[in-house]
Amino acid sequence: MTMLADLLSTVFDRRVKFANLFSDDARSTEDLAAALVNASSEGEGRALGQLILTRFAEMDDDRKRAFFRHVAEEMNIDPEAVRGALSTYEADPGRASYKSFLLAAEPQRQELIRRLNMVPNATGQLVNMRADLLRLSEGDPSLEALDIDFRHLFASWFNRGFLVLRPINWQSPAHILEKIIAYEAVHAIDSWEDLRRRLEPADRRCFAFFHPAMPDEPLIFVEVALTLGIPGSVQNLLSEERAGILADDADTAVFYSISNCQAGLAGISFGNSLIKQVAADLSLELPGLKTFVTLSPIPGFSRWLSDTLPEASAEDHDLMRAMAAHYLVAAKRPDDTPRDPVARFHLGNGAQVQMVHAQADVSEKGLQQSHGVMVNYLYDLTKVAQNHEHFAVQNKIAMSSEIRSLSQSAAKTLKQGVVDDKPAL
Amino acid sequence: MTMLADLLSTVFDRRVKFANLFSDDARSTEDLAAALVNASSEGEGRALGQLILTRFAEMDDDRKRAFFRHVAEEMNIDPEAVRGALSTYEADPGRASYKSFLLAAEPQRQELIRRLNMVPNATGQLVNMRADLLRLSEGDPSLEALDIDFRHLFASWFNRGFLVLRPINWQSPAHILEKIIAYEAVHAIDSWEDLRRRLEPADRRCFAFFHPAMPDEPLIFVEVALTLGIPGSVQNLLSEERAGILADDADTAVFYSISNCQAGLAGISFGNSLIKQVAADLSLELPGLKTFVTLSPIPGFSRWLSDTLPEASAEDHDLMRAMAAHYLVAAKRPDDTPRDPVARFHLGNGAQVQMVHAQADVSEKGLQQSHGVMVNYLYDLTKVAQNHEHFAVQNKIAMSSEIRSLSQSAAKTLKQGVVDDKPAL
Amino acid sequence: MTMLADLLSTVFDRRVKFANLFSDDARSTEDLAAALVNASSEGEGRALGQLILTRFAEMDDDRKRAFFRHVAEEMNIDPEAVRGALSTYEADPGRASYKSFLLAAEPQRQELIRRLNMVPNATGQLVNMRADLLRLSEGDPSLEALDIDFRHLFASWFNRGFLVLRPINWQSPAHILEKIIAYEAVHAIDSWEDLRRRLEPADRRCFAFFHPAMPDEPLIFVEVALTLGIPGSVQNLLSEERAGILADDADTAVFYSISNCQAGLAGISFGNSLIKQVAADLSLELPGLKTFVTLSPIPGFSRWLSDTLPEASAEDHDLMRAMAAHYLVAAKRPDDTPRDPVARFHLGNGAQVQMVHAQADVSEKGLQQSHGVMVNYLYDLTKVAQNHEHFAVQNKIAMSSEIRSLSQSAAKTLKQGVVDDKPAL
Amino acid sequence: MTMLADLLSTVFDRRVKFANLFSDDARSTEDLAAALVNASSEGEGRALGQLILTRFAEMDDDRKRAFFRHVAEEMNIDPEAVRGALSTYEADPGRASYKSFLLAAEPQRQELIRRLNMVPNATGQLVNMRADLLRLSEGDPSLEALDIDFRHLFASWFNRGFLVLRPINWQSPAHILEKIIAYEAVHAIDSWEDLRRRLEPADRRCFAFFHPAMPDEPLIFVEVALTLGIPGSVQNLLSEERAGILADDADTAVFYSISNCQAGLAGISFGNSLIKQVAADLSLELPGLKTFVTLSPIPGFSRWLSDTLPEASAEDHDLMRAMAAHYLVAAKRPDDTPRDPVARFHLGNGAQVQMVHAQADVSEKGLQQSHGVMVNYLYDLTKVAQNHEHFAVQNKIAMSSEIRSLSQSAAKTLKQGVVDDKPAL
Repeated sequence: MTMLADLLSTVFDRRVKFANLFSDDARSTEDLAAALVNASSEGEGRALGQLILTRFAEMDDDRKRAFFRHVAEEMNIDPEAVRGALSTYEADPGRASYKSFLLAAEPQRQELIRRLNMVPNATGQLVNMRADLLRLSEGDPSLEALDIDFRHLFASWFNRGFLVLRPINWQSPAHILEKIIAYEAVHAIDSWEDLRRRLEPADRRCFAFFHPAMPDEPLIFVEVALTLGIPGSVQNLLSEERAGILADDADTAVFYSISNCQAGLAGISFGNSLIKQVAADLSLELPGLKTFVTLSPIPGFSRWLSDTLPEASAEDHDLMRAMAAHYLVAAKRPDDTPRDPVARFHLGNGAQVQMVHAQADVSEKGLQQSHGVMVNYLYDLTKVAQNHEHFAVQNKIAMSSEIRSLSQSAAKTLKQGVVDDKPAL
Repeated sequence: MTMLADLLSTVFDRRVKFANLFSDDARSTEDLAAALVNASSEGEGRALGQLILTRFAEMDDDRKRAFFRHVAEEMNIDPEAVRGALSTYEADPGRASYKSFLLAAEPQRQELIRRLNMVPNATGQLVNMRADLLRLSEGDPSLEALDIDFRHLFASWFNRGFLVLRPINWQSPAHILEKIIAYEAVHAIDSWEDLRRRLEPADRRCFAFFHPAMPDEPLIFVEVALTLGIPGSVQNLLSEERAGILADDADTAVFYSISNCQAGLAGISFGNSLIKQVAADLSLELPGLKTFVTLSPIPGFSRWLSDTLPEASAEDHDLMRAMAAHYLVAAKRPDDTPRDPVARFHLGNGAQVQMVHAQADVSEKGLQQSHGVMVNYLYDLTKVAQNHEHFAVQNKIAMSSEIRSLSQSAAKTLKQGVVDDKPAL
Repeated sequence: MTMLADLLSTVFDRRVKFANLFSDDARSTEDLAAALVNASSEGEGRALGQLILTRFAEMDDDRKRAFFRHVAEEMNIDPEAVRGALSTYEADPGRASYKSFLLAAEPQRQELIRRLNMVPNATGQLVNMRADLLRLSEGDPSLEALDIDFRHLFASWFNRGFLVLRPINWQSPAHILEKIIAYEAVHAIDSWEDLRRRLEPADRRCFAFFHPAMPDEPLIFVEVALTLGIPGSVQNLLSEERAGILADDADTAVFYSISNCQAGLAGISFGNSLIKQVAADLSLELPGLKTFVTLSPIPGFSRWLSDTLPEASAEDHDLMRAMAAHYLVAAKRPDDTPRDPVARFHLGNGAQVQMVHAQADVSEKGLQQSHGVMVNYLYDLTKVAQNHEHFAVQNKIAMSSEIRSLSQSAAKTLKQGVVDDKPAL
Repeated sequence: MTMLADLLSTVFDRRVKFANLFSDDARSTEDLAAALVNASSEGEGRALGQLILTRFAEMDDDRKRAFFRHVAEEMNIDPEAVRGALSTYEADPGRASYKSFLLAAEPQRQELIRRLNMVPNATGQLVNMRADLLRLSEGDPSLEALDIDFRHLFASWFNRGFLVLRPINWQSPAHILEKIIAYEAVHAIDSWEDLRRRLEPADRRCFAFFHPAMPDEPLIFVEVALTLGIPGSVQNLLSEERAGILADDADTAVFYSISNCQAGLAGISFGNSLIKQVAADLSLELPGLKTFVTLSPIPGFSRWLSDTLPEASAEDHDLMRAMAAHYLVAAKRPDDTPRDPVARFHLGNGAQVQMVHAQADVSEKGLQQSHGVMVNYLYDLTKVAQNHEHFAVQNKIAMSSEIRSLSQSAAKTLKQGVVDDKPAL
């Protein structure tokens, strides 16, 4: 096979269907992977890599799991070799001994992933491969360990310094826009008309991070509404009948939806950077903006409430707001971090819990998950660093005085009530 | 310092002079580096990173050496910790134990470099930092080991899949072109007029690899002449008076100059990819091209000849050609690879030694290094993979029959001569 | 008003709602037009032009008609002045006298239109203004004369040399694509999904002409299907279930829809250029393409047939094909050109009538206008010039031998039938 | 020839050498021009046009003059036909009669020029053709009349609304920058290094107008220095040793050089638009800019002074400044407009004469034309419209009080002197 590899890998790079030329290679995909990590020629390497990626894409889940397991086990570190290289290095630390140690301490499967990434357009395929791995690895220690290698490499490749922020608007290419429709995870986009309502008006913005090696794939995007004052209802915000305003007249930027696009990049966090970069860019472009705030769901509220105060009526809006405030700032996990995952994300970014609104998301999903209550997290750029540090070090939650009062009133209600909320909080 | 970091790192990212705001930070740069690897907030991390990079750029060599040494020693692996994590992993292999092992086995200085790379535009500064390191590390084992870490990360960041090939021509931006003038390493470009002669005519091309994070910096570039037949003189090739041809009429593409641009990317090889990608692209664009060949210097020939046949007259062109052919294919290093560094590069790529020409480079440099002799290496795309493999495995050198004859005649001359050439070859 | 005009026209050009600043100008729009043709400052001119365009866009049809009539009458040529300038020129031909003659012979309303076009983004607004004029001018000689001036200037501005051909595909901006949906005039595009089926597959193409001063507005576009053989049914061609082919495998390019986008450019013909440019570009890109053909409607066939052979049954497909062929090549207008408008367009371009198909367009519209029959016009690039000339000079229609036979058999039918078809043909 | 024209004009448009295929056409270029205005096919027209343009470019001046004269005379208006069409129109004004009149009143040579412009890339060639015409027409009434036609069409094609303003900087393509070097008409650019000093520093800017049909050819450009205060010496402004400032710190934008690039666009004025657009753009980008001013040569001062006060010593700087001020505001042509051409341009734009400086241009050219004196014209955007109007209607010149005093003191000197300055002023 190596005979034509160099030629073909270069000449056909752009045209392609290229790996098919080797589709009658008799070796197993596992053997091809072994050949790839040992290939001495770049051309051969690219041909092998292309073939492996093509075959992998056509495997069913059982076959994928078997391939992952083979790679995880056969290309793992060799503890004895690590120990030997370490001793040699300790005895005579230097360029050569250190290099040997690094080589021994890094499992060959990392080199496999790096070499696969030399194939043109491989990065996106490797992201999809990790999405498969995450789906298939649960409970399998060797596959979970393999994921550590993917994550380690991806953290390096998707370094913030390599990401590009791009506005998404009605002038954007259709093949990008259809992905925005597909990936929107918070408030579903029904149609191209619905999409247009979120992109075209002067008081609406959308931004996404892209990686240069995946130029057609947004990694994460945020939808922003420019408003007068802080809004308390997502249905009003997205209403077809709403009256728009001029961007220059807005005083508030509302981050009403943040969606991760790539399952295979789980754990490689971009959301924090995205919000802050967008806030910074908007504040430069529109000096009238004074407030940067989210309008966020409270996904765990209904479940917590049914455990904590099952008799609470969703019709009592004051109660709902108080209980929601309390849930956000007082309901904790065993590690003392907030029980609500969206709260953890924004508080971890240095935001503070600012306001809660009843009847704010009256969609089926909104009523189901939080009795329609939503929350604003405030990004005060002069305080996010301090808030972040207090939260990271002491689990201290930043909140407005209104939220504090609401939570205290909820605590009183719970104390007086028949339900013992202690365990739940 | 953390208090304003998040705000400033985002708001000022684009405008900037930003790190100056912290220039009165009392901590040493070494302490800032320690703070950076421990920073929990991205904003703080970027502010610290920016400050470290700014300070480093202003250091003199002694100060840089001290900083490198500190990082190399204080952020090295801890062998005991590696051993402990390895044992734990062996006892109970799984996600957590494997992650702990990887963390222990990777020196903290790799994380330092990765975090520095989160600063906007840091990648180019880190490449320059490594150029300094290479310059200062010679003979210092700890700095040489530190370079292994830079190289390891750079190999991942500058993965072939992330590089972009761009044509360089007379329509290219001036700030890129001035770098082509500065970086040309083989046949110096005297002036903008000289540059124009290499870029503007229909039978001249130039291509460079770029990395998306360093869009204004070529990494490597190759200059190509489209010709009728294989040329035997670089002065003729570059002559101001030469008659140009139409690109469609050419049958040969001559790679007459390849220049690496970034000292800090030494050892991260792009030349092989570049030549093959350019050959593939040109063959698609210009189907008339049948031959892809270099016109290359022979930097070590004069020195070898003065050792081997000191009485040889440079006026005897036949002798010069024969001896040059012999030097290229028979003069070896102790490890049995060719003594000539340019030969090692092209033969390692799978090229073959095709022709040698006397009086081919009559510049002062050309006469000095090789008595004016130059060589064509042939890239036959149907043979490069095979050639590469034979060379890699058996040190077998591909050559034309003409080169073989010339080398044999040279061997005969040497045998009959008074000089014992054995040790030299 | 002139006082601030220069300032405002420049400073506010890009931002702005600028003309509103003058919206309280007491002068009538007709007076503003008179002021514009006499303005000596460019800044004043642009401010006046902006105000006129803004006011015009808000007028109702009666008001527009009145404005057009005023311009047509008050800014017309003055025959006495023309005669005087002509005599002066004849007496002493030279730069000054010729310039005076040209000035007298050109109505001031042409200068008005040119000055309106100095307003940023005015070109598109003037195209829309002419669309209004065409709609309102019918039967009004002075407005029809005014249209001659618009057309004269537009022919110069929309000179073929200024147009840019751009591919339209699934990577094109959404705000362009929505216009493709809106402007498609032959086979309506139902939805974004329908659009995607016409743009995204490898065997589908679309191209449009744009003018640099209206970058967001296609002027005309053509939709192309790449096929194996000449297709005989538009429903099959556009079927959701069809099996696609690779572009490289196609031997035929089918122009199945051509749509003019701008009512205001009526009579400024781009279709001929568009088809030939697209055919030329495709033949360079895909050397496998041998045949360039349309799949066209026959809009006048049903009406003609009901006059000519009212008893003909649409179920008799052979008869339908023969009669359609006959209609296309033998039914003429008083000036001896074909009765069918689509036939006139393609024959005028130098195409030939190649094939007719029954059941080729079974949409309601297709059945209604032509009993489902469609026609292929063949663009044989080696014959279009000759065909064009024969058609232009002698009204000679190029046709395939099959069409000739079909037409002859139809003529026989008609002769034998009870209907006297002479007058109809 | 028509047989292959359509095919070739389309297929070969982009590749080309195309007109050569007809280079053996036996017809004279004059006959080809006649064929072109009569061509009915667009393809034939483009082939003929291409051939005419190619032949014209190779003609010597005598041949060009003969071609122009033929076109001027054979394609002129026919006065009898004009009179006839005019009478018909008067008798029955309407679409058809008006169209006929316009056709008769427009010389066929305008249609010739329009049809030549349908050839790809013809616009630039036609601009060059007019440059030839202007060079050759002097004193020849028929050629001067032909130029009126070129100018009429160019005014329409190069309408302000079609022009695009682009910044020129060190990131601009080299083939554009070399034209900036070539076209600089005021202060010659010696080298690429000199060019870089005018483009790269943060306090230097350059802008040019382009036309979409000539994307590689600037039409006019202006060089701008951002300064603190109004500068009084161009050598200081351009000094290699000058200390730069940050753009944000500047309070003044100095237009120190404006160059028209295309001789063939003489009389189609862009300078006014360019200055005002650049001033408006800069004031939006850099709110700190308060003053927009030129630093301009006074090309006619030395000659006027030697007529008016021949004994004046150039060493007396106060006298030089007073006399220069006086020359600018009081020396008039017979039509009562300023004698100095640069003054006419800026005053016509609505600028005012602000300051004069001795020793301001000590280059050979500066000393020769104006004894080293230069002048600042101030563009106060709140006054340019008023200034323009006063100047256009009453020849009233706007000037600062300092200029007024200087001029008065000069007038006194002249009165007391022996020289009678009346005739000269």
